[in-house]
Amino acid sequence: MKKINFSAGPAILPASVITQAAAAVEDLDGSGLSILEISHRSKAFDAVLVEAEALVRELLNVGDEYGVLFLSGGASTQFFFTAMNLLNPDETAGYLDTGSWSAKAIKEAKLFGHVNVVASSKESNYNHIPKGYTVPGDLKYLHLTSNNTIFGTQFQSFPETDAPLVADMSSDIFSRRIPLERFGIIYAGAQKNLGPAGATLVIVRKDLLGTVERQLPSMLDYRVHIKGSSTFNTPPVYPIYVMMLTLRWIKEQGGLTAMEAHNERKAKLLYDEIDRNPKFTGTVSDDESRSLMNVTFVCTDDADTGRFLAAAEAAGCDGIKGHRSVGGFRASIYNSMPYEGVETLVNVMKEFN
Amino acid sequence: MKKINFSAGPAILPASVITQAAAAVEDLDGSGLSILEISHRSKAFDAVLVEAEALVRELLNVGDEYGVLFLSGGASTQFFFTAMNLLNPDETAGYLDTGSWSAKAIKEAKLFGHVNVVASSKESNYNHIPKGYTVPGDLKYLHLTSNNTIFGTQFQSFPETDAPLVADMSSDIFSRRIPLERFGIIYAGAQKNLGPAGATLVIVRKDLLGTVERQLPSMLDYRVHIKGSSTFNTPPVYPIYVMMLTLRWIKEQGGLTAMEAHNERKAKLLYDEIDRNPKFTGTVSDDESRSLMNVTFVCTDDADTGRFLAAAEAAGCDGIKGHRSVGGFRASIYNSMPYEGVETLVNVMKEFN
Repeated sequence: MKKINFSAGPAILPASVITQAAAAVEDLDGSGLSILEISHRSKAFDAVLVEAEALVRELLNVGDEYGVLFLSGGASTQFFFTAMNLLNPDETAGYLDTGSWSAKAIKEAKLFGHVNVVASSKESNYNHIPKGYTVPGDLKYLHLTSNNTIFGTQFQSFPETDAPLVADMSSDIFSRRIPLERFGIIYAGAQKNLGPAGATLVIVRKDLLGTVERQLPSMLDYRVHIKGSSTFNTPPVYPIYVMMLTLRWIKEQGGLTAMEAHNERKAKLLYDEIDRNPKFTGTVSDDESRSLMNVTFVCTDDADTGRFLAAAEAAGCDGIKGHRSVGGFRASIYNSMPYEGVETLVNVMKEFN
Repeated sequence: MKKINFSAGPAILPASVITQAAAAVEDLDGSGLSILEISHRSKAFDAVLVEAEALVRELLNVGDEYGVLFLSGGASTQFFFTAMNLLNPDETAGYLDTGSWSAKAIKEAKLFGHVNVVASSKESNYNHIPKGYTVPGDLKYLHLTSNNTIFGTQFQSFPETDAPLVADMSSDIFSRRIPLERFGIIYAGAQKNLGPAGATLVIVRKDLLGTVERQLPSMLDYRVHIKGSSTFNTPPVYPIYVMMLTLRWIKEQGGLTAMEAHNERKAKLLYDEIDRNPKFTGTVSDDESRSLMNVTFVCTDDADTGRFLAAAEAAGCDGIKGHRSVGGFRASIYNSMPYEGVETLVNVMKEFN
């Protein structure tokens, strides 16, 4: 039985992307070669990179003032990479602490400069996105995690500040429209909304670079990768190829306007059931903080937990067990999750007694 | 027509590995999920990591005093990573300069400590592996590139020194037996003898770590990855999976003893033709420096170059055009290249007139 993949990441990909991705491993577009064995300097892969970059620019409306990079190392690498490239030891960056990944980004940034944690929801186990704080005026940048995979929270709008925003969008990039011009850097590990694990998308405003005094190893300098068009060294060819296929699929679906509507409709279906059904309780404390990507909830009576998990799995719903920091359940319903997948889960909830 | 892939990297993989790698994209072992969408913390992927590590340890005879890591970022990342983790600012590491990749490793290491270039063949366009030099006694480590992809040279034996060797083995790892106990760190981008681009194998002697004073970002600290068993963050799942399949294949072929015999036989076939046929000339200045992995040669009469390339391509030989630094031709005949592939190329050479 083909399972319905609710995993937090690596996560579901569109069925058509998987079919094409498998075919290219056998033979890339009738070339007589597998995508796994072609040179990263071949015309075939150059076409992949060019198309992937063009799709990123078109879908998110990214102008030439930004570089678009396909790197490796995941968001965890970007935690230090961003600070290393933007922050001098005597400068201060602001950080919004909205979950485990924000906390890790804060830890790594402290190695390079001053960190001002402008707001935090840690005291309430990150069950909401902070509100009502003031962002200081002297920040080099303000870092945030746009969607918190573990805690099921998401920024519905972005904080007011003159500083450029630096955002980890690993788990909600391309899921909705965003005010791109407010961002200095956006980074995202591919393995939630973009493709398989192993590639990292970085969108970086070029005029922010070159202001740090420290010497950067070549591989840790955004300017080197911009100059090398993501092929300064051998990039993760196959993960980038599958990312390109996924970006094509997003465009075919109608781009970010369509994705946003699709994601809102799926999330509403699931949250409505959580709110209606006394057997279940959402874990996020206010509706405005609820994530459209990762829906976290518990059984109101903890004694039901094991039985509900078994019922969901029997219906083919895979990966809904919640993260240990929150418990209960987490349904990750990224772009590639079809409406019917959420319907299946909601039907299990309705029938559960 | 299925081409014979002589590319320098990303490079040929065994046909049976490609078949299995494609099937797993559709469905991993009947799980109902694609390998592209499974969690890196799933039992299925944990089994992949455990088997891959066990195969590395078995094939290279790696004991528990070493960590075996599956990272990303390629050898280019290891150029600075090794120095950053091993070398204090007042310490000296030795480097053997045998090609473009050695030179890049030297450049990056200089950011972290003193670099003593113990020997170099740069003056003769890297057409041989240096001999007759003395390694100083006070080195933290001695770095070398065991096989030089661009220049077609390879260390047949490793230099005498009390310092631990640190080696970039990207293009000849698992191609032959090596005296593992002499190495402090071995690193290798996967995309030549191990799998597709996107994964990097690192074998590191644990007692060498923790001796540098600088603060390391988590992702740049070998100890963090050893402690996290390569899942401190989301690793490149699919490239590691294909690496595991390739390691299985190497074991099935008879391990490194069999690989070595297979590679020696293929290289002899090709070098014998280069030496016999007056139409061709090898570019490496002494036989002891010749690589068994990348065989570089030119047409003795440069006017033949275009015509020979066309003849080889007509016979299905792909990727034999030489690197611009050397010109002519480069036939990369890694582990996965079958004897029959080299025979096809040699037959084109024999018939060329």
